Amino acid sequence: MTEMPMRVGCFYCEHNAEQDSKMTAITSLSVSTVYLNHDQTYAGRVIVALNWHVDEMFELTDGQRNAFFKDVSIVAQVLMDVFWADKINYGIYGDLVSHLHVHMVPKKKSEAGFGEAFTNNPGSIKVISPAQEAARIEQLRKLLEEAADETF
Amino acid sequence: MTEMPMRVGCFYCEHNAEQDSKMTAITSLSVSTVYLNHDQTYAGRVIVALNWHVDEMFELTDGQRNAFFKDVSIVAQVLMDVFWADKINYGIYGDLVSHLHVHMVPKKKSEAGFGEAFTNNPGSIKVISPAQEAARIEQLRKLLEEAADETF
Repeated sequence: MTEMPMRVGCFYCEHNAEQDSKMTAITSLSVSTVYLNHDQTYAGRVIVALNWHVDEMFELTDGQRNAFFKDVSIVAQVLMDVFWADKINYGIYGDLVSHLHVHMVPKKKSEAGFGEAFTNNPGSIKVISPAQEAARIEQLRKLLEEAADETF
Repeated sequence: MTEMPMRVGCFYCEHNAEQDSKMTAITSLSVSTVYLNHDQTYAGRVIVALNWHVDEMFELTDGQRNAFFKDVSIVAQVLMDVFWADKINYGIYGDLVSHLHVHMVPKKKSEAGFGEAFTNNPGSIKVISPAQEAARIEQLRKLLEEAADETF
């Protein structure tokens, strides 16, 4: 890595209360951090955010971009297995929060919303209990760290 | 590439009338083909589809995945420049059309829809004239092929 720029006012850089209001860190992978979204309308919805600030993937070197999408790919495989997903949805939007991050949403044929893009900011969110959240985070952390160890 | 599997009934594999009803090919890059979406609600909306069938990015080898996201990155840079975009949105959904493909949507602060995820399947689409479409495709083809030549 030649540089790891951070941006003032970006919650993915500052790890501030705004970020805490939306997500909880699960673990870090090679160049990214994985967060469990507080909205668990789709069980297992997570965010994978680059560990430094760029707005667009084309600002990365080839090696950085390869590492980032390897991290994303590891997360996708784990989500698929843990949540019995039929498909993973991925969204990179960032009009307002430009820091490179991927919303990852496990989708099941048997559940509402299958067949259409997930709603990024739903009107009401599904929050799970603190105990459920802690258990989900611990399960994902263990599997993500194992998967990352096997892969590198 | 060890294999290039195709799937019967998948329009990204079969290049059939269903595909023609949604998009027009612009050019091929290293492992993907770029299509102009018939819906040009957001000027420059395109699709980048892998040139063979997988459902999820984790089915690819590291080299295949790296090449795919390099293609995506090249397209993003060109869209940013041509359409004076403030942000590129990327969506990989595929609940019903599972073939790995990325919807890429240039967003502008001055236009409607900035600040929220683009609508993947809007109720009504904005179609441009055949002449406008041909011009847009020709412009993008030229710039994409130049960018790919510079990059490899």
